Amino acid sequence: MASTSATTDPCTVVVFGASGDLTHRKIVPALHSLSCEGLLDERTRIVGVARSELTDEQMLEGLFEGVQDYARLDPHACDLWPAFAPRITYLSGGYDDPDTYRRLGRHLEELDAEHDTGGNRLYYLAVPPQVYVQIVRQLGDAGLCRSDKGWVRMIVEKPFGHDLASAEALNDEIHTVLDEEQIFRIDHYLGKETVQNLLLFRFANAIFEPLWNRNYIDHVQVTMAESGGVGHRAGYYERAGVLRDVFQNHLLQLVTLTTMEPPSALNGKTLRDEKVKVLQAIRPLDPEDCILGQYDGYRQEPGVDRRSMTPTFAALKLHVDNWRWQGVPFYVRGGKALAATTTVITLQFKRVPHLLFLGNAEPQPNRLCLFIQPDEGISLTFDTKVPGGGMRSQPVSMTFRYDETYGERALPEAYERLLLDAMQGDAGLYARSDEIELAWGLMEPLLDRGIPHLYTWGSRGPAEAQAFMARDGRQWVDAQCEAAGVRCGER
Amino acid sequence: MASTSATTDPCTVVVFGASGDLTHRKIVPALHSLSCEGLLDERTRIVGVARSELTDEQMLEGLFEGVQDYARLDPHACDLWPAFAPRITYLSGGYDDPDTYRRLGRHLEELDAEHDTGGNRLYYLAVPPQVYVQIVRQLGDAGLCRSDKGWVRMIVEKPFGHDLASAEALNDEIHTVLDEEQIFRIDHYLGKETVQNLLLFRFANAIFEPLWNRNYIDHVQVTMAESGGVGHRAGYYERAGVLRDVFQNHLLQLVTLTTMEPPSALNGKTLRDEKVKVLQAIRPLDPEDCILGQYDGYRQEPGVDRRSMTPTFAALKLHVDNWRWQGVPFYVRGGKALAATTTVITLQFKRVPHLLFLGNAEPQPNRLCLFIQPDEGISLTFDTKVPGGGMRSQPVSMTFRYDETYGERALPEAYERLLLDAMQGDAGLYARSDEIELAWGLMEPLLDRGIPHLYTWGSRGPAEAQAFMARDGRQWVDAQCEAAGVRCGER
Repeated sequence: MASTSATTDPCTVVVFGASGDLTHRKIVPALHSLSCEGLLDERTRIVGVARSELTDEQMLEGLFEGVQDYARLDPHACDLWPAFAPRITYLSGGYDDPDTYRRLGRHLEELDAEHDTGGNRLYYLAVPPQVYVQIVRQLGDAGLCRSDKGWVRMIVEKPFGHDLASAEALNDEIHTVLDEEQIFRIDHYLGKETVQNLLLFRFANAIFEPLWNRNYIDHVQVTMAESGGVGHRAGYYERAGVLRDVFQNHLLQLVTLTTMEPPSALNGKTLRDEKVKVLQAIRPLDPEDCILGQYDGYRQEPGVDRRSMTPTFAALKLHVDNWRWQGVPFYVRGGKALAATTTVITLQFKRVPHLLFLGNAEPQPNRLCLFIQPDEGISLTFDTKVPGGGMRSQPVSMTFRYDETYGERALPEAYERLLLDAMQGDAGLYARSDEIELAWGLMEPLLDRGIPHLYTWGSRGPAEAQAFMARDGRQWVDAQCEAAGVRCGER
Repeated sequence: MASTSATTDPCTVVVFGASGDLTHRKIVPALHSLSCEGLLDERTRIVGVARSELTDEQMLEGLFEGVQDYARLDPHACDLWPAFAPRITYLSGGYDDPDTYRRLGRHLEELDAEHDTGGNRLYYLAVPPQVYVQIVRQLGDAGLCRSDKGWVRMIVEKPFGHDLASAEALNDEIHTVLDEEQIFRIDHYLGKETVQNLLLFRFANAIFEPLWNRNYIDHVQVTMAESGGVGHRAGYYERAGVLRDVFQNHLLQLVTLTTMEPPSALNGKTLRDEKVKVLQAIRPLDPEDCILGQYDGYRQEPGVDRRSMTPTFAALKLHVDNWRWQGVPFYVRGGKALAATTTVITLQFKRVPHLLFLGNAEPQPNRLCLFIQPDEGISLTFDTKVPGGGMRSQPVSMTFRYDETYGERALPEAYERLLLDAMQGDAGLYARSDEIELAWGLMEPLLDRGIPHLYTWGSRGPAEAQAFMARDGRQWVDAQCEAAGVRCGER
């Protein structure tokens, strides 16, 4: 977390799942952008591994298209692609075939010798989760999890486990061949600038932290809405559902970063220790405090069971049982086929203790909105005087937007930051085993139970989610914003 | 203060000094705008009194020009002038001539009878201060300070006194014919939307008041800079100087509204009681804590003594000796011929208690800027993460601007609000006798002493004012803003 060094060790990045969507859309475009920015050591090499029988040229052609379509920097002209492409080689083989790993081992040694990569290896498991264990075991058996000369690290994609038991089993399996320090469990939300800025916003400013507690905050809302449906991911989604897809990881991470105590220093250990403390303080979830939804039409999606009970929407109420947050509910919702694509954290402050301005509507409570994506930024809503006679007040808001300050395309892609950190050995923005298991433990009582309420595509989710807030005398912020005429989250 | 009623009692507004600049530029344009907005009762009449021998037509011609040049509403087309002009009549006479007041008395009775103004009278002393007492005495002698049928009120322009003794004497004189409740001492700064909004911003929002004290605020700066010189006001200014011109009134009012405790209700008594409490808590000023300046060229202005010691700039350090503000210095500066025209209150917060982001420059302290004029608005400066690797922070700011929310010309002129309040009998935005006398008492040790330092026209004042801050390890905010690359006050 603390690294600001512009360089990384030389290493070989081995991407398992090299012909897959993630490699195509995220991993290689991110490596390319890092290369454009001079953040990748000149000696660093990339090896793609996959089952497909492809020549280096065929594979490069596919990756080139991915860079053109998805890379943040140099996306169309690809001025720098000719310098970047020769770093990449391809190795085809079955993930369960020991020969694949023997050939990989020889190839890595050749690259070490030829390019002076220092024996450093970063494995990236960009494969379906059922393949993780095979690869880990085979790498261990082939002796590729230890390097005499350099370091060995492994990035594991999400989902990390399907529930608490499977996550524990996977951790156990990986720990037989790698130490915890070598394991980088990705949650790409932690790579987002706006998510990292949560820490900086809270702890590099003196004025927010004094308000950041039960004395001043009425409640917190965390929303992660997507306007699209399951699309081509129905196979995965049908087994996962919204709680596994975005709650156990992204949404709990956002809650954790919003609620954690300030660490004494910022490194992988102190930061994750504080996050773990918050996860431990979250009260076990009551299924009564969870509203599930399924969008009308989900069962007709290709690959979905016609009687599917998989939730595509959920709204939860969480309680953080510690001194700072006692009595402050956290309303967390996420889902697909909703009115907008937006991820936003909203802190709603308490009302003024005493109404001074009579003959006036009660002022709206202050609200701080942290826009994670899109329209990355921060907005503060407060009351000011309506011009003219009397002392009438009206909510207005002031906004900081990243694009206005830094320009378009200034925010690195999450994968750029995360790959860079892994190459620098900084695991602060990756999930630790205890963190993953606590998060699964919290979700456990809600998984695969409950009957989802239907909701219309493009709506705000099921009516029951509105009623759920109304029972607490509160409203989801999007509705509030509309009422107040204040833009908030949907622009 | 609490009135939101859109109507006023019918009355007759008697403006002494009807041929003067203030009537021309401010008072009649304000009455005209109130009339355009339907806030002036149909029956209300206006009587101009002055020494000049003018016909009603001549006087109206002059006022028409003033409305065209200065009125906020209907300024050029003057669609509503034909309906407004017939309300105005003119009465010429000496201020010291009892006959003037006999004729005025008869005229007022005629207007009462003809237009059903209910016997309500609002006198407006828009004359040089040396004439105040004459008019007050004559009005008293003529029996015009009492009305059997309605109310009698008097607006007294600034300056109200030349020092403590003269202010006390003027209060005594006026109190012989009018009760304190009838007296409206104008400070047009209190009529500004942004100044009234200080109260609303502080007390209609729950999040600022917890930070608004010595625990979180490092210091406060109040700046009232004008880019122009003394111009045609040299005669007045030469006797007054900057401390009488803007410190005793406007700047102390801004300090008072920034520092006062929340009143239990908002009315003329409670609000002014709280303001008086703060004035009583300001530590007697030490001439050591005052830097005076005079712009190079002031002595060459027409009407200025070639050896003048009149200050055209001052910078003070104030201390408010109470629980809330102990140890928080208030740096207050104002003057003419400076780099910009701007009035702004800046609260600079303390630094973060613990530096979490190593390898990083220390974050800038948070700053809240309240732009009183021009570019009316509010801006909050805070640190966010610089996009890219590491955890580097950078100050950014978010701003609320009145014109962006309400459009141009949406903010009423101060005189509109103040005239409206006086017609409604609401003195909350006018200075009470104790308030005026306390303010003069505070200024007393600084008046007419000290040798001003020369400064260049268009500069930030004398170098000594910068050194004065540097001795406390601080900087005036304009300089800080430049250093940080953050726009603040000068756009």
